[in-house]
Amino acid sequence: MAKYQAPLEEFHFLLHEYLLISKKEIDGFKELTPDFTAEILRQGAKVATEIMLPINKSGDKEGCKFENGLVTTPKGFVNAFDEIKKGGWTGLDCDPLYGGQGLPITLSLILGEIFSSCNISLTIYKALTHGAYATILTHGNDHQKDTYLPKLVTCEWTGTMNLTEPHCGTDLGMIKTKAEPLSDDEYKITGQKIFISAGDHDLSTNIIQLVLAKIPGGPDGVKGISLFIVPKFLVKSDGSLGQRNSFSVGSIEQKMGIHANATCVLNYDGATGYLLGEKHKGLQAMFTMMNEARLGVGVQSLALAEVAYQSSLDYSKERIQGKSLQKDGKFSSDPKPIINHPDIRRNLLDQKSFIEGARALTLWTALLLDKGNRLSDKRSYGLASLLTPVIKGYISDVGFTMTVIGQQIFGGHGYIEEWGMSQLVRDSRIAMIYEGTNAIQAIDLVGRKLNSDGGENILYLRELVTKFLNQKSASEEIESDFFDPLRIALQDLDDVLEFFLDNGIKNPNSVLAGASDFLHLLGIFSIGFMWVKIVTHIMERKKAGKKLNKFLEAKIVTGRYYMANAIPKTTFLATKIKAGDKILMSLDPDQF
Amino acid sequence: MAKYQAPLEEFHFLLHEYLLISKKEIDGFKELTPDFTAEILRQGAKVATEIMLPINKSGDKEGCKFENGLVTTPKGFVNAFDEIKKGGWTGLDCDPLYGGQGLPITLSLILGEIFSSCNISLTIYKALTHGAYATILTHGNDHQKDTYLPKLVTCEWTGTMNLTEPHCGTDLGMIKTKAEPLSDDEYKITGQKIFISAGDHDLSTNIIQLVLAKIPGGPDGVKGISLFIVPKFLVKSDGSLGQRNSFSVGSIEQKMGIHANATCVLNYDGATGYLLGEKHKGLQAMFTMMNEARLGVGVQSLALAEVAYQSSLDYSKERIQGKSLQKDGKFSSDPKPIINHPDIRRNLLDQKSFIEGARALTLWTALLLDKGNRLSDKRSYGLASLLTPVIKGYISDVGFTMTVIGQQIFGGHGYIEEWGMSQLVRDSRIAMIYEGTNAIQAIDLVGRKLNSDGGENILYLRELVTKFLNQKSASEEIESDFFDPLRIALQDLDDVLEFFLDNGIKNPNSVLAGASDFLHLLGIFSIGFMWVKIVTHIMERKKAGKKLNKFLEAKIVTGRYYMANAIPKTTFLATKIKAGDKILMSLDPDQF
Repeated sequence: MAKYQAPLEEFHFLLHEYLLISKKEIDGFKELTPDFTAEILRQGAKVATEIMLPINKSGDKEGCKFENGLVTTPKGFVNAFDEIKKGGWTGLDCDPLYGGQGLPITLSLILGEIFSSCNISLTIYKALTHGAYATILTHGNDHQKDTYLPKLVTCEWTGTMNLTEPHCGTDLGMIKTKAEPLSDDEYKITGQKIFISAGDHDLSTNIIQLVLAKIPGGPDGVKGISLFIVPKFLVKSDGSLGQRNSFSVGSIEQKMGIHANATCVLNYDGATGYLLGEKHKGLQAMFTMMNEARLGVGVQSLALAEVAYQSSLDYSKERIQGKSLQKDGKFSSDPKPIINHPDIRRNLLDQKSFIEGARALTLWTALLLDKGNRLSDKRSYGLASLLTPVIKGYISDVGFTMTVIGQQIFGGHGYIEEWGMSQLVRDSRIAMIYEGTNAIQAIDLVGRKLNSDGGENILYLRELVTKFLNQKSASEEIESDFFDPLRIALQDLDDVLEFFLDNGIKNPNSVLAGASDFLHLLGIFSIGFMWVKIVTHIMERKKAGKKLNKFLEAKIVTGRYYMANAIPKTTFLATKIKAGDKILMSLDPDQF
Repeated sequence: MAKYQAPLEEFHFLLHEYLLISKKEIDGFKELTPDFTAEILRQGAKVATEIMLPINKSGDKEGCKFENGLVTTPKGFVNAFDEIKKGGWTGLDCDPLYGGQGLPITLSLILGEIFSSCNISLTIYKALTHGAYATILTHGNDHQKDTYLPKLVTCEWTGTMNLTEPHCGTDLGMIKTKAEPLSDDEYKITGQKIFISAGDHDLSTNIIQLVLAKIPGGPDGVKGISLFIVPKFLVKSDGSLGQRNSFSVGSIEQKMGIHANATCVLNYDGATGYLLGEKHKGLQAMFTMMNEARLGVGVQSLALAEVAYQSSLDYSKERIQGKSLQKDGKFSSDPKPIINHPDIRRNLLDQKSFIEGARALTLWTALLLDKGNRLSDKRSYGLASLLTPVIKGYISDVGFTMTVIGQQIFGGHGYIEEWGMSQLVRDSRIAMIYEGTNAIQAIDLVGRKLNSDGGENILYLRELVTKFLNQKSASEEIESDFFDPLRIALQDLDDVLEFFLDNGIKNPNSVLAGASDFLHLLGIFSIGFMWVKIVTHIMERKKAGKKLNKFLEAKIVTGRYYMANAIPKTTFLATKIKAGDKILMSLDPDQF
């Protein structure tokens, strides 16, 4: 069976020993004492494992239903979502002005991970609502904020994002949905949107669709896109719900996974919409939502990889199969639990070293975002924006693979739905696709994030790494097993950056051809940096006389595994990237 | 939609330009003229695409049903299987003595690929029957051969293999199923078998279960396993069907994929079984079946990767999204088909270069097998046995990834079942698990195949590669773009072999820790060798004045892509392997 317990010791370590959050001079961080964070995470874990987890598998099996124009979620989802609302779990990091609790993202991200581990389909309803909240908070006028935010903070109303149409997903410049002005900020919306996650369901009394559409006569392409608030039920001036808006659900999709999250075709038939933000600036507004969502998607992948890891670890200790080498150099006479076999350990350590490193990276990125937001620290914010496509794209690519590895440890049982591992693989697969496919993340990274402000963000990351490698005096062992491999990866990164600089301007395809490999290179490198910092920190404590417990000893081994087995891939990736686009572009389409 | 056309031009090229089969001095190969193979492949492709493909998706959706103790296959499967039987497609490479057509494996493997591409679930019924045929042919007595083989050749009766039990899969020494002697060769079989593919269904009048069981009083572990023929209906002396044997279907599994192939729990309740081969030598007998099946599983993966490739290629030409760089160095003003984007091309060439290279490898291996069988050529047979785990394990690992890549090209549509890409991923996933998980393939490779006969098989492969690299005078371009990368991979292979030799005897775990990476290294290397041979051959034809058509030009580019993008991974894998087992084994189970 898929098994899960929130890794609370790990979160404590990252928050209070690695990131030292309660010592940060950031508004609201002083309050994040170990006791406080332990308590809120313990409570969150309780809700997630007791209320969300038990309906995760049944939700997958039952799926959402679409009958008589209405979408219903699987059995138990309405009650579970109500409990989450009642517990105040929906507005953790929202503005207290609108009923939120004002906690930092660094903390809410962890709760997002725990919730996603327990029930990704249910979590998505909440996550998208948060995205709609953030977009209206940033771009809405006072009336819009007052009308929608308090209800979105509590998830009494839920939110969505409506981007994709049948003929366009990535290339939003091609959208056809029309917004005809009725008054200053009121428009008539007509068109069809597809792949709308949480587009309709029975979990809230109102659904606030944020819809991208074109106002006739505006500029072509993405420069002519505007964003609209289109509520399922129009809101009267007293805040109560009025008439049903003119859009309907065309169908819901039968998907590979996340069956309990309704993916809708929505048909807008002259629906009333309200302009959100400026005319023709819809894409920028939507990016508020997307950047947040992208970070969230990386965390979702991590969350499912964690469950796959815990489940396969558990199985590897229980499943007895095959003789194993003993300390005396002989094979045992009886079969042993498969965790004794080197190949299974490799599978487990591939998972463990990735998950723990990736978690450190996402939390560090969240901290950078909090610093950016709360201290108006542009460098931190910029670095977070550089790392966002890496977290979305790299973590979801590898996170998916990790669910496959976890499934593999189960042998034949992994393929049987009853055991729950197939669901993890199927649920995880979407993260590589939605909120912009991972190819789009890679293109965003090399095309925008790498170059913005003269490449300041990547230079800042390099600066942090080189400073760390130069300033820290480390033991010989740390030098050879941790610092040196990271230095090689840094050299690979530099080689690629030089290749991009030399070729990118005269031939953008030479960069685009290596975009996805670069996304992976930067992901591996960044996670490697996390491991080097974590292990150095632990070794310093040891040097200072502190006795290390088993948890900290395991961190050192796991970090060492990452540096020996994962980091060397950067050299391979750099080789591929430097092969450029020439071979790729030399085939005619009909020669493929 | 998933799309498929049998790649007949490709098969012609491999058979007649690369392997030159009709020029081989092997019994039965002279007849394999281009006209003959073209005709049989054309007819096979017709059956597969017209009869099997149309029920592939509906079969996935409907799945098998288990009601009142009986398993039924999805709508259309009975008729389709009847057509395959009628067409004589079940006994292509079977012994003419029992009604087969005596064709070489080199040809039947191709038909297996085509059939698997069109309907993997349906093909498995046939493939397992063939495995049962091969096992009885090799190990059965005359009476058994006469009784069962003619019916298995035509698939009037089908066959299975019964190995796994709830508590043991890989470690067959642990099986509990009991075989109590009733007479010299008749036994009473009692126990439970699980994961029995094609264990029950409505496609044949009888099902011949080959069951591993232990005769009480025999040796412990795998040395006490015997193999039994256990027919669903006992066969009377006149060959007609008698009473129903005492075993029943407990349930069928709800699986991630291959829904139209019934995976059964079978309960043996004193069923009548006939000893096949020698007492306590059941495992060796079963290996006849498994080695064949393992080659077949690699081909299945390849077959599904081919469909994913064709489908995603088709989509990439139709889907218009995003502006692309034109020959004048500017981006187009309008969106273009996504095949113009470098990242999509990378995805397509990753698929294409793997599939074509892996297909060359499987066909070459089949040819080695035919040589081994028909010329009693031990070196060829030995090399085929070395490559069998590579074909099963490496091709199914990467083949699965290729279906994921194909799915990714579809963006959001890839996640929707209607489009068929999800089914390819789900169906492909089993190949990494069944017939021995890929970890077992890797252990078989490093533990058995690498060392057998003093390492003769790997030395033979090295010899073929070095001879080729030394004897051929190649152009500078071929030297630098093809020969040199293969030389580096050969060096990586040698480094690892040296590492294994230096460490394996005193510490087997140092080899076992790198087994899976070695499987991949050898897979990449072997496919690289295929590409170097293929491209060298084409370039020689060019040098000799032959004008190359687009197909052959594309082969050169595709091979070049493989050498630049896939081959360099061997260095990364060698680094990982040489890291050994020390880190892996240093964690206590409770530190994971």
